[in-house]
Amino acid sequence: MASCIFCKIIKGDIPAFKLFESEKVLAFLDIQPLSYGHAVCAMLPVMIILVIPKHHGALLTDIPDEALSEILRKPVAKKVAVASGAEQYNLLQNNGRLAHQIVDHVHFHVIPKPSPEEGLGISWPAKETDMDKLKTLFNEIKAKM
Amino acid sequence: MASCIFCKIIKGDIPAFKLFESEKVLAFLDIQPLSYGHAVCAMLPVMIILVIPKHHGALLTDIPDEALSEILRKPVAKKVAVASGAEQYNLLQNNGRLAHQIVDHVHFHVIPKPSPEEGLGISWPAKETDMDKLKTLFNEIKAKM
Repeated sequence: MASCIFCKIIKGDIPAFKLFESEKVLAFLDIQPLSYGHAVCAMLPVMIILVIPKHHGALLTDIPDEALSEILRKPVAKKVAVASGAEQYNLLQNNGRLAHQIVDHVHFHVIPKPSPEEGLGISWPAKETDMDKLKTLFNEIKAKM
Repeated sequence: MASCIFCKIIKGDIPAFKLFESEKVLAFLDIQPLSYGHAVCAMLPVMIILVIPKHHGALLTDIPDEALSEILRKPVAKKVAVASGAEQYNLLQNNGRLAHQIVDHVHFHVIPKPSPEEGLGISWPAKETDMDKLKTLFNEIKAKM
């Protein structure tokens, strides 16, 4: 898509630190890393690696199965996590503005977590388990699978 | 692994709301959902769906490529997201205690985000871009790919 920043990076119209590229997938460094810590080594900043399908689409459900295949199958996300040297990290893919998505081209963030203060912070407001509600919900979803 | 709660769910020793099951993958409802909102319909709670490889391993890098193949390839994560009825959602996979992982069996959370107050909250302390640091880092990681 002409106006998409990630499509421009794929085409080479915008320069990027490309770590891995195949026919279907591109992995590159985010130019706005969360934190500069010491995931890779004590001297180097923490970074975020983005792994994206080359097929343009905003949401996971917009991407054809084949275009997603290499991200976890070959799997590029795993490969870049190992190469980053990060021992602990988060893999995060956001769908929609409410869900913290900023660029409307599906992307998987690989975010090193070297310390509690650095990297991705999440809030996880767990509620008490309501088995009756869950059962109703389960039947509803199961029927659509 | 005998003491792993997710392995027990796979084996059937602990009951679970199983949405999808194949030789390699299991998708089921988390019994501690983040929030009870209205992602599926106004009457039903929001839920978290967990998608896991049946192969036991704590970290993404512990799982053989083949055991991960169906999660995004066929792709179960996409299928359950559609069936959940959630329009906006996060896909999150945590590696390590610091990185918010609680159960040491690789799992992908599918977390509906019906409103700013519900679902997954994240903090994203972006720092200013330091191109020199990024370039050094890039060369370091690229050499390991």
